[in-house]
Amino acid sequence: MNVLHNISCGMFIVSSSRDGALNGQIANTVFQITSEPVTLAISINSKNLTHEFILDSGVFGISILSEEAPLPFIGKFGFKSGRNEDKFKDVNYKVLPSGCPVVTDYSLAYIEAKVINSFDCLTHTLFLGEMTDSAMLKDGKPMTYDYYHQVKRGFTPPSAPTFIRGEKK
Amino acid sequence: MNVLHNISCGMFIVSSSRDGALNGQIANTVFQITSEPVTLAISINSKNLTHEFILDSGVFGISILSEEAPLPFIGKFGFKSGRNEDKFKDVNYKVLPSGCPVVTDYSLAYIEAKVINSFDCLTHTLFLGEMTDSAMLKDGKPMTYDYYHQVKRGFTPPSAPTFIRGEKK
Repeated sequence: MNVLHNISCGMFIVSSSRDGALNGQIANTVFQITSEPVTLAISINSKNLTHEFILDSGVFGISILSEEAPLPFIGKFGFKSGRNEDKFKDVNYKVLPSGCPVVTDYSLAYIEAKVINSFDCLTHTLFLGEMTDSAMLKDGKPMTYDYYHQVKRGFTPPSAPTFIRGEKK
Repeated sequence: MNVLHNISCGMFIVSSSRDGALNGQIANTVFQITSEPVTLAISINSKNLTHEFILDSGVFGISILSEEAPLPFIGKFGFKSGRNEDKFKDVNYKVLPSGCPVVTDYSLAYIEAKVINSFDCLTHTLFLGEMTDSAMLKDGKPMTYDYYHQVKRGFTPPSAPTFIRGEKK
């Protein structure tokens, strides 16, 4: 399974809202799909609360995490469910005119996208979104998934696309 | 547009075949979508020859490029069309039992996937494939798109998902 570890990707918080409630989760599958117009695809586990919010609102936010993001901050968004707690408590964020929040802590930039299609991919849904807003927040190095594993020594939850059963770290 | 440069991704050769003819192209949008079973998505410009071959054969290969891959090698697969020349001439590769080739030069690993769905994304098609074969070829660091731009000083062709009009490099 080492082969799959060689597929480079970044670390992001994907966020959305429903009736004023905000939620977000760690994602490592955020990709640009086309350049004109700019579209992005994200893969979200269909059991996640963020999945429900994106389906309902038709909008999602992406915060591109910096290498500086500490493990407890990532853990808050990666290993807990917004069904049990308000993940945005004690976090700096911005609510865009659409109502969609974007986390600004430890983030180099954010992107907002409007869902233009969604594709069923077994346990996950691939949402295709057209970029509607974006801004740089600060300079820095984007955290890669490899950096998260190798330098931060972070884990991967079973609900993630890249989870590998029996993996030690 | 700097925001989009902060989305981390890798550098790959996506390959396929038709009636014994082999073709492949550079891609930076290769990502794992689900873990059980392992599925991967790739975004391929619908005008590309590799796109035709994948549609016809229902199979694609992915070679994960090493940081050692030189620009002329990347250029061969990234800036030329298999309609005009045989890209596999003078390149080391392996043809898998399915008939799908995978490039082994400057590659850390390869993956073969059978297309289980395809999604129309404007100028590109997202192919969802289930992994059918994979192997490590050697140790090394996977080339990221950022490394290709910043260290290798590589360019991006207009047909790529991440092309930015007017960009200098």
